[in-house]
Amino acid sequence: MGKFKFFIPLRVRFAETDAQGHVFFGHYLTYFDEALTQYQHAIGFTYQDFLDAGVDFFYIHAECDYKSRAFFEQVLNVHARVGNIGNSSVTFEFAIHKEHDDEWVATGKIVAVVIDPQTKKPVRVPEMFREAVAKFEIQNS
Amino acid sequence: MGKFKFFIPLRVRFAETDAQGHVFFGHYLTYFDEALTQYQHAIGFTYQDFLDAGVDFFYIHAECDYKSRAFFEQVLNVHARVGNIGNSSVTFEFAIHKEHDDEWVATGKIVAVVIDPQTKKPVRVPEMFREAVAKFEIQNS
Amino acid sequence: MGKFKFFIPLRVRFAETDAQGHVFFGHYLTYFDEALTQYQHAIGFTYQDFLDAGVDFFYIHAECDYKSRAFFEQVLNVHARVGNIGNSSVTFEFAIHKEHDDEWVATGKIVAVVIDPQTKKPVRVPEMFREAVAKFEIQNS
Amino acid sequence: MGKFKFFIPLRVRFAETDAQGHVFFGHYLTYFDEALTQYQHAIGFTYQDFLDAGVDFFYIHAECDYKSRAFFEQVLNVHARVGNIGNSSVTFEFAIHKEHDDEWVATGKIVAVVIDPQTKKPVRVPEMFREAVAKFEIQNS
Repeated sequence: MGKFKFFIPLRVRFAETDAQGHVFFGHYLTYFDEALTQYQHAIGFTYQDFLDAGVDFFYIHAECDYKSRAFFEQVLNVHARVGNIGNSSVTFEFAIHKEHDDEWVATGKIVAVVIDPQTKKPVRVPEMFREAVAKFEIQNS
Repeated sequence: MGKFKFFIPLRVRFAETDAQGHVFFGHYLTYFDEALTQYQHAIGFTYQDFLDAGVDFFYIHAECDYKSRAFFEQVLNVHARVGNIGNSSVTFEFAIHKEHDDEWVATGKIVAVVIDPQTKKPVRVPEMFREAVAKFEIQNS
Repeated sequence: MGKFKFFIPLRVRFAETDAQGHVFFGHYLTYFDEALTQYQHAIGFTYQDFLDAGVDFFYIHAECDYKSRAFFEQVLNVHARVGNIGNSSVTFEFAIHKEHDDEWVATGKIVAVVIDPQTKKPVRVPEMFREAVAKFEIQNS
Repeated sequence: MGKFKFFIPLRVRFAETDAQGHVFFGHYLTYFDEALTQYQHAIGFTYQDFLDAGVDFFYIHAECDYKSRAFFEQVLNVHARVGNIGNSSVTFEFAIHKEHDDEWVATGKIVAVVIDPQTKKPVRVPEMFREAVAKFEIQNS
């Protein structure tokens, strides 16, 4: 998966397990989403900053590859990075492994389009975001 | 529990089960909420009607008593009725049993306060709602 | 997307919306999962049938493309079909549009591996499943 | 509410908000459940310890009073304590306020019955649990 410079630890909640005894597959997207939010903090932004700058994010694609199982109370280190920035889209990449264990539990991505909240139409990814990502990735490389 | 004049059938989704093999206890509030929504339809309203009438609902209390367990794919008949209407509050009552089985799986209630969406302050329960509830309960008794 | 011979209608629950006002992106996987379950019924199986036959499903991949937004109470027709059957894997394909509207809201897929519940190792997709899929797709084409 | 000796901080996830812009009311039960789990750790137990001791918990009642609203990314301090221990039941009490703010957002309780996982019948609350609760509450008072 290459290197990630950021992760958040999340402890699996009982609510997130299913009758197979492990985490329900859909919840990994919530884990990714939470890591994406915290990644934006790490590079200097809040969600409100984007709204204040007149942009919002719509997700146009999400995917997850499930490689092993995670169970109640296990701590998952959910890694996030920006993989690519296009004109109006940003691809976030994710990879999860358990605390004290470097085997990947799941990997995936979310592709977001930056939109104008009024028109809901795509707009160019703000320079402030491009610069913050570049700075964060270099500083931490 | 007395009589209910309205119910909706809901099939338990795999996402709603947990590692104990049955429905996660928190999801019963979602079932109640969905029955509340459909009850309002049954008496002649959509959520948009309330917004258009300048009111919204905030829930101030919810509770559930769990009497037996429900499993993946079982069909739950979620009954709803209005138990009480105060000046600004409405108490909705719920009871769930499985299809083809009259044993209660869960019972509970949600107390909602009618608010002004602008001020978020309580306002009087609209007459249109009071009348619709009264008419529905009489017509169906 | 080609043709689907099966769908289930699902009404968007308030619990499934988020602060952007529409369905939270992760819940589409739950919608797919529910359609997958009902598709298996349509071709003649219950989840218990698979367990009884000594096999279970683990999901190894899921993805979703989001094409438009869905809102509280809108009815989504969630289409499902089997796109491919490998030695031990089955690819389910999904596409969602709103009732009375043929614009796709979301499309996606889930790749499942058939496993032995004891060993958690992949096993060959049962013949009964292959035949049932073939029969269903021909009968309904 | 009296005093609590234990809390966990939980940051509101976007997945937990709804179209009213705040946390969906049902998710508070998940917050309570997560605090209950961590409270058991604080007094010296894991969920596995209970299973190993031949007991499990079924919830028979849950309730929540909603006092104000919580929003995306706000940190909620979810307090937990044992309010009462009966023969086979334990009442857990909860209260939530926001970080840096002592106004209660929600309060509630969960009543659990200790059961034999084989028979699913109530059994006496284990002495080890009674003693651990007593010790924790005294040590921290």
